[in-house]
Amino acid sequence: MTERVIGTSVPKRDGADKVTGRTRFLHDLELPRLAHGKILRARHPHARLLRIDTRRAAALPGVLAVITGADVEQQPFGFARDQLALKVDKVRCVRDEIAAVAAESAAIAEEALALIEVEYAELPAVFDPVAAARPGAPLVHEERGSNLTDLRYQFSHGDVDGAFAEAAAVVEGEYRLNFVTPACLGTMVAIAEWDLEDRLTMWSTTQVPFLYQRDLAQALGIGGDRVRVHQPPVGGNFGRGLDLYPIDVIAALLARRARRPVKIEFERLEEFVACPTREPCTIRLRTAAAADGRLLGRDCHVVIDNGAYVSWGSTTPYVMLSTVAGLYRCPAVRFDTTIAYTNNPYSGSMRGYGNLESTFAVESQMDELAAKLGLDRLELRRRNATKPGDAHPQGFAIGSCAMGECLDALGDTTRGLPPPARGWRRGVGYAGMFHVGGGARIYKSDGCGAIVKCDDFGRVSLITGATEIGQGSETVLAMIVAETLGVPLARVEVVNSDTAVKPWDVGVHASRTTFIAGNAARLAAEKLRARLVAMAAGELEATVEELAVGDGWIFVKAEPQRRIAYERAARTGHLREGGQTLVAEAFYDPPTAMLDKDLRGNVSAAYGFAAQAVVLDVEEATGVIRVRRVVSAHDVGRALNPGAAEGQIHGGIHMGLGYALSEHLVVRDGQILTASFMDYAVLKAEDMPELVVRLVESIDAEGPFGAKGLGESGVIPVSAAVANAVHDAIGVRFTELPITSARVHAALRAGPRD
Amino acid sequence: MTERVIGTSVPKRDGADKVTGRTRFLHDLELPRLAHGKILRARHPHARLLRIDTRRAAALPGVLAVITGADVEQQPFGFARDQLALKVDKVRCVRDEIAAVAAESAAIAEEALALIEVEYAELPAVFDPVAAARPGAPLVHEERGSNLTDLRYQFSHGDVDGAFAEAAAVVEGEYRLNFVTPACLGTMVAIAEWDLEDRLTMWSTTQVPFLYQRDLAQALGIGGDRVRVHQPPVGGNFGRGLDLYPIDVIAALLARRARRPVKIEFERLEEFVACPTREPCTIRLRTAAAADGRLLGRDCHVVIDNGAYVSWGSTTPYVMLSTVAGLYRCPAVRFDTTIAYTNNPYSGSMRGYGNLESTFAVESQMDELAAKLGLDRLELRRRNATKPGDAHPQGFAIGSCAMGECLDALGDTTRGLPPPARGWRRGVGYAGMFHVGGGARIYKSDGCGAIVKCDDFGRVSLITGATEIGQGSETVLAMIVAETLGVPLARVEVVNSDTAVKPWDVGVHASRTTFIAGNAARLAAEKLRARLVAMAAGELEATVEELAVGDGWIFVKAEPQRRIAYERAARTGHLREGGQTLVAEAFYDPPTAMLDKDLRGNVSAAYGFAAQAVVLDVEEATGVIRVRRVVSAHDVGRALNPGAAEGQIHGGIHMGLGYALSEHLVVRDGQILTASFMDYAVLKAEDMPELVVRLVESIDAEGPFGAKGLGESGVIPVSAAVANAVHDAIGVRFTELPITSARVHAALRAGPRD
Repeated sequence: MTERVIGTSVPKRDGADKVTGRTRFLHDLELPRLAHGKILRARHPHARLLRIDTRRAAALPGVLAVITGADVEQQPFGFARDQLALKVDKVRCVRDEIAAVAAESAAIAEEALALIEVEYAELPAVFDPVAAARPGAPLVHEERGSNLTDLRYQFSHGDVDGAFAEAAAVVEGEYRLNFVTPACLGTMVAIAEWDLEDRLTMWSTTQVPFLYQRDLAQALGIGGDRVRVHQPPVGGNFGRGLDLYPIDVIAALLARRARRPVKIEFERLEEFVACPTREPCTIRLRTAAAADGRLLGRDCHVVIDNGAYVSWGSTTPYVMLSTVAGLYRCPAVRFDTTIAYTNNPYSGSMRGYGNLESTFAVESQMDELAAKLGLDRLELRRRNATKPGDAHPQGFAIGSCAMGECLDALGDTTRGLPPPARGWRRGVGYAGMFHVGGGARIYKSDGCGAIVKCDDFGRVSLITGATEIGQGSETVLAMIVAETLGVPLARVEVVNSDTAVKPWDVGVHASRTTFIAGNAARLAAEKLRARLVAMAAGELEATVEELAVGDGWIFVKAEPQRRIAYERAARTGHLREGGQTLVAEAFYDPPTAMLDKDLRGNVSAAYGFAAQAVVLDVEEATGVIRVRRVVSAHDVGRALNPGAAEGQIHGGIHMGLGYALSEHLVVRDGQILTASFMDYAVLKAEDMPELVVRLVESIDAEGPFGAKGLGESGVIPVSAAVANAVHDAIGVRFTELPITSARVHAALRAGPRD
Repeated sequence: MTERVIGTSVPKRDGADKVTGRTRFLHDLELPRLAHGKILRARHPHARLLRIDTRRAAALPGVLAVITGADVEQQPFGFARDQLALKVDKVRCVRDEIAAVAAESAAIAEEALALIEVEYAELPAVFDPVAAARPGAPLVHEERGSNLTDLRYQFSHGDVDGAFAEAAAVVEGEYRLNFVTPACLGTMVAIAEWDLEDRLTMWSTTQVPFLYQRDLAQALGIGGDRVRVHQPPVGGNFGRGLDLYPIDVIAALLARRARRPVKIEFERLEEFVACPTREPCTIRLRTAAAADGRLLGRDCHVVIDNGAYVSWGSTTPYVMLSTVAGLYRCPAVRFDTTIAYTNNPYSGSMRGYGNLESTFAVESQMDELAAKLGLDRLELRRRNATKPGDAHPQGFAIGSCAMGECLDALGDTTRGLPPPARGWRRGVGYAGMFHVGGGARIYKSDGCGAIVKCDDFGRVSLITGATEIGQGSETVLAMIVAETLGVPLARVEVVNSDTAVKPWDVGVHASRTTFIAGNAARLAAEKLRARLVAMAAGELEATVEELAVGDGWIFVKAEPQRRIAYERAARTGHLREGGQTLVAEAFYDPPTAMLDKDLRGNVSAAYGFAAQAVVLDVEEATGVIRVRRVVSAHDVGRALNPGAAEGQIHGGIHMGLGYALSEHLVVRDGQILTASFMDYAVLKAEDMPELVVRLVESIDAEGPFGAKGLGESGVIPVSAAVANAVHDAIGVRFTELPITSARVHAALRAGPRD
């Protein structure tokens, strides 16, 4: 039968409440007896802590608790368990937490912070990972004896040296990607409350609630069974919630000390200082191609500025490698990394997660190869496009794949645009994208649970493990359930914000929710539907096979007027002797594998592809870049909600354009210089170009209704396409982001076109 | 194996939070943009509404909405669908709602009420149901043509007239039971919020959330699928939440009009006026017995003052009949009722639900029969005590029954008590109790659903349909799950307050939660345990049959040291290829039937029994009664939590003593004269006697771990035992409650002992 909900552009469920100001964000949450916490951070990026005197702060009226690392029991935490929430002995970056205060109000807590006396002995610091990796560099963690982290990603496939030896063209370059920050409109918040049985309830910005439950318990030295996590609506997250952070641990420590619930809410300045960033890195890449444009090999080395502590952001080479090895067919690949501690702030995960960076390098070189070989830039990409059934060097099993169709779908990218004004030069740039689209097994489980129930009124609830951080999962999961059950969408409620209620999910990351949680929801709904149809079969005097569902009815396929409403079928099954109510549960874990020690394995049950074209004009006199149009073609498997899919892509392009053109968290000598929206240039609505989205449907065999993940694919190729368009316009190749007007202007003045 | 949790006196889970002031009651709930509602009520008990002018109220700054019955769409609701939330044309009692205001604050709303002008034309009123039933009485609902409701409960079993003809002794009397009110410390509250898709969320004092969902939707003329109900902690309920009330409908109507969430919270005075009461009634009872004390027959007629509208309180004859027919073996029974509208406030359901009233009559007559026949009062009861396997005249299947043991367990009731002081006379009174203890099928489903999940940390959640109103269901249900799964109790969370999350339950009433929801929880936990044990079997290299669970471990019975922790077993099952998480669901509906038109059927899967003895002293000069001791022996099937069971009985006795001695909501000419705790005498802690509770375990075959319901059995026999004790002390038979000192004093002065 025809689908009625899937494939329609239903408005996002949280949209109306958000635009009318009704949403109760985590920030809006108040609890009885709520105390307010503030954190004192390091003045210096690297210093020994000689003395912390909190007595004056503690004496301030209204102060409920003052704690330092010396006062509390805490365990190391973080990806490498290399930090304490409240630092002891020394600080390693300016984000470092030294003390915290809980008070009757945030203002009192702030005032108390100023009364804490800290005596430092400054230490020599290191801010560059290459310098940090050299012998004799100041040690960020002395006990390690080196600034090199334990992380190193080495991969080799095929005859790389042979590939370069036989190549008709070789290009190479070094690409510098600077600090950017997600700049969520909702800052980070943690609220902690202990009950009288010493169990902890947290309200958090986390996006991995069950891993957070585990990690927070470990940091506090308690069992995971003692932690309950609530996830109220957040104003953006974009990967920020993948790690546990000191804010969470400190809120819990303060609440325990104050014997009151404690809320820590970052102000904007603090968000710029303490929110994890995208990891800064340098990518050295060489690419070899044959005369016909066929890629022969790539050789890549990534240096990551790890900052003071290891986070999920330090593991982005996982994804960088996937792109180096798999964005276009490439038979030989070598990849290595240097990930070194510095006294800079540390990063976290951020939408696209390494892929923006590697795509920037890879796609810059695709243009350079085309130029060297005298091939059309799109044609070069078409010749190398991944196809269904391809073997990725890491062993990814490429199923559905419409990369070629995405390239074709870009079409005439400038049609209808007026020509550039006088003094402006136009350029068009292209970039492709390859990303996981069916989960990403970074943990032993990549699964999600779902419980579906239908009450006597035909009202349906989906209790899902999935986390909503604004990406629209509530909408699409409700649609999947509504479609599967054949009920109107408005009847489906999604419950997803309390670990005591929802079943397991590894969290929202890797564009996995529609695919993984969607499959779980579909499975549970199918079970429920089967039971409901069985209940209806008796009433309708028909066999189960003769029945279908739709619009809240169960009906005889051959005689649609022989039908029974869902709620009546539910009551018929319920309100009788031996009656049953309708509850069903399912768990979906995709058929994938974690990467092995050689970084091989099929990490995702599906892969996403996209191609973008950026049309922009550059003013020669000033270097100002005006993006006129972005065309973005995405293999989404199936567009469950085309409007929502477009919206995800729009948001991604916005973030990508900021990364390409304007956003730069300037960190000098370990200090953050751009700590407000006056300094940190997120693009505004008026800065945005025309956006043209083309959704290409490859109908994935494993995805729910054929869908694949999409959450990150909009943002990934943008900076590469912008750099290629700028080169197309003015002949200058930028290898560092952002490509600001000042840089363009300087380049235009400095030299001739290449 | 030995049980570790069941049978222990675990403190109530909500206890610590309540005594330390941490509980967030419904009253404490605030929402963003919350508006406050107030209701204008009738000045007269019966009057035509000639004019309502709300203009001045609407013009008051801060007023957001003013509504009357003329302004809103509403449907009739209530047990007999005989009222509108906002009355139109006329008022029928002083509780009647005429208009409502939503404003920025409760004070502004209150001020606005005073600005509403109402012009009445008073009508002749009727306040006595017998008078109301006579032809020519003022009609409460003119369109009905009579004040008789459609409710009538007629029952006949055996040869009643023959029984009285052959009796060695016949006693008869008329018993008057007056208005009392639950006097919950937490008044009634309703919060309503509409979303932008016109779906309604309610936060309510309801104790039947799914029936409330249905009834509220009907009253508002919307589908039940559009209503979501939250049940935050309440400060008492005692049956108050069994009906839908105007407060709920009006909150929803105001919220719709104001386009803001609206909270209506009764002040104490309003609670006395508008909270449903226990139904006032007059019971005419005759009892016939043989010379050896065997009961031969009973003949009963109950007149109920229905008040202005029919409520669940009007249906209490259902339960009165059960007691008349089944408290002690009685082969012939006749029962009839007159239930008439009056212009008094109407009642609702209240703990014990008709059974206090009928037990008062039945047990008063047991003493009178003993006196007439020259038999010991306890011996008379023992000779007539119900036994396992007895056939109840209505067809109740009596399974487990320890009535005789309860009578025996009363023991020497005065042992250790100092004798009465000079001028005081001591009396001892007895009463038995018979009540449903395994649900009560008042609706087509008497079932409850349960979902149990166990996370990777061994933390367990029970999502139950059951409603917690302070009775301790969270504690006992958590115990059942902990025992069944073999995990420490602290690991079990109970989730129970949101209809979008919890599965069906008919609600908390009829002492059914431990039995019904307990069985559902046990079934779901058993399913989960089976899956977990299967997961562990592989790890332990043992068969499922060889394994047992306890204290969070799964172990080999024969070698308890071969064991695996729950959380590890959960992770073992989850974190592998094809892994599964642990979620299980179950639904339990007891094997019972609704009463048929002849009021026959087995309404409950088990029945509870109890016997009480009251020892009291009466001061001859003043009539003051001082209760010295209450001994209460209860067949609870199995005491799952003896401390909590005792607590339930303590609370019941407190309420029963108030009913017997002090509580009286005085209603004169339809007006409530005792509308504060200065006038309405709830017993204080210092008024309470020594309480001795004896828990008798009959181990019910169907109950969870053998348990039967207990929530109401403490309150039911108290007033009868008190009346019998007073008679024992001073020879005066009181047939009306409460037996105040003034009444005793008057009786002592009026006449000689009988």
